[in-house]
Amino acid sequence: MRFDVTILGSSSATPIYNRNPTSQALNINDHYYLIDCGEGTQQQMLRFDVKASRIDHIFISHLHGDHYLGLVGLLSSLHLNGRIKPLKLYGPAPLMEIINLQLKYSETVIQYEIDFRATDATKAEVILDNQDIIVETIPLDHRIPCTGFIFRQKKRLRKLIKDRIDQLQIPVPYFSALKKGGDYTAPDGKVYANEELTTAPDEPKTYAYCSDTMYNPNYFEQIKGATLLYHEATFLHNMHDRALQTHHTTALQAGEIAVITQAQRLLIGHFSARYKSLNELLEEAQSVFPETELAIEGKTFIIGD
Amino acid sequence: MRFDVTILGSSSATPIYNRNPTSQALNINDHYYLIDCGEGTQQQMLRFDVKASRIDHIFISHLHGDHYLGLVGLLSSLHLNGRIKPLKLYGPAPLMEIINLQLKYSETVIQYEIDFRATDATKAEVILDNQDIIVETIPLDHRIPCTGFIFRQKKRLRKLIKDRIDQLQIPVPYFSALKKGGDYTAPDGKVYANEELTTAPDEPKTYAYCSDTMYNPNYFEQIKGATLLYHEATFLHNMHDRALQTHHTTALQAGEIAVITQAQRLLIGHFSARYKSLNELLEEAQSVFPETELAIEGKTFIIGD
Repeated sequence: MRFDVTILGSSSATPIYNRNPTSQALNINDHYYLIDCGEGTQQQMLRFDVKASRIDHIFISHLHGDHYLGLVGLLSSLHLNGRIKPLKLYGPAPLMEIINLQLKYSETVIQYEIDFRATDATKAEVILDNQDIIVETIPLDHRIPCTGFIFRQKKRLRKLIKDRIDQLQIPVPYFSALKKGGDYTAPDGKVYANEELTTAPDEPKTYAYCSDTMYNPNYFEQIKGATLLYHEATFLHNMHDRALQTHHTTALQAGEIAVITQAQRLLIGHFSARYKSLNELLEEAQSVFPETELAIEGKTFIIGD
Repeated sequence: MRFDVTILGSSSATPIYNRNPTSQALNINDHYYLIDCGEGTQQQMLRFDVKASRIDHIFISHLHGDHYLGLVGLLSSLHLNGRIKPLKLYGPAPLMEIINLQLKYSETVIQYEIDFRATDATKAEVILDNQDIIVETIPLDHRIPCTGFIFRQKKRLRKLIKDRIDQLQIPVPYFSALKKGGDYTAPDGKVYANEELTTAPDEPKTYAYCSDTMYNPNYFEQIKGATLLYHEATFLHNMHDRALQTHHTTALQAGEIAVITQAQRLLIGHFSARYKSLNELLEEAQSVFPETELAIEGKTFIIGD
């Protein structure tokens, strides 16, 4: 099953030339789950070939403009391009008020349904549970209500060992029970243990998205063991005071969080416009957590390989 | 005096790769007057070196997203980058409601004053009159209230003929009256006619911005004789029905409007995303008005040369 994330934007607050505000397209089994939607996200999708028609879920972390100002334009374009299938939208409660006000004055009636679910930044909640994924909010610590999102693959079924199945001529109706871990009793009464007939499935993988937030251990337990942890790293640690003041994280802290939460890999982003080059941010995070990469626009990161 | 316009975006409704929604930066005497502010305008300003700090006036024609969705991001960036000088903003009355709602939920208090003047799409009005320019709204005919803007240079003062001034040793305090057309009486009582001492100033130039609108002669008289007429040309004329339905203009009609209103030059823009190449639109407008050019992003058009 495909499970990867393409970075559409990784700038914080003010954009800089060729660095757009935050947005990511998570591909789960060829469906896109859009996470945040800063200004210009539509253009970035065109640039990096992320097909808007494949987006059925959009997640907005909070209502600072660099995380959602591209949303109304995207919703309008989907409408103008003839979308009729419903879209699920997750974000802070006032988001729909903002969207509706803008649609009202443009006299636009969106022809597809927007199924909105308000997030609650005070607690972790499961907000989506479908055949591929479970999504929980992560209560973060920012200046305004803000949640991250953790995407947990569903626990997969065990895999049949085809040769053994053929050998024993096990009929198809038994497969479902075997995949769920059941043993097999042959017509002659002999019992075959599940472990003889199946192998363990791949471990479910998780993608944890944490932007924007200051360093706060409250959410560490929830993101523990992420296959890929995206964490904001707005500043270098020599600007720790500024990070505290603005409720952001430094690259050093992002690395520490990856260590503490036992992430397999770390992706840092939400870079302040002051950093024309990102090398120092990368080196600082790698100094504590070597498996760190930069959330460079257009780059796709496979979650778990 | 510098008087030119740089195209920041020329796409209609939905953006296409490398064609942004509408925005133009009019440079008058090294001050920028921003006209419309579609999503991504900030990035286009960075790309084409239009300095945000030099913008003191922003004009929004109407509340379709492709003309203003970049505004809140731009206003926020000006704030984050430390602007304190006031900004004059002109647009439909609900624009401030939309801005204020978004600022409220991002808990942002803009530290500079936004001096907002609501436009009235039912009549032409002078909305700005400073030492360089007079700006009038143009009531257009679109699906929702929409105004264009016409920028008229102030009538300039006459120019002194330096050699004659020196020869007659005319003292400096007389210059102002001479520039305004007065004659000069020398100490010996002899009167010198103004025409002997000054030359006529350049004719004031005008830039008329008409987007979005369907063909409607009601505004033709107002834009008569524009030095440069920008007119939307969303479709080719073979899509005239669609243009009528959506209250837009065809390239052929834009050319006709330039002929009827005796424009010196025509600039067409607001191209539908269906046209990957713009040549046919250009050729169609040029078939009736040869002095037509395309509003290509990044291109600067001098008004009057």
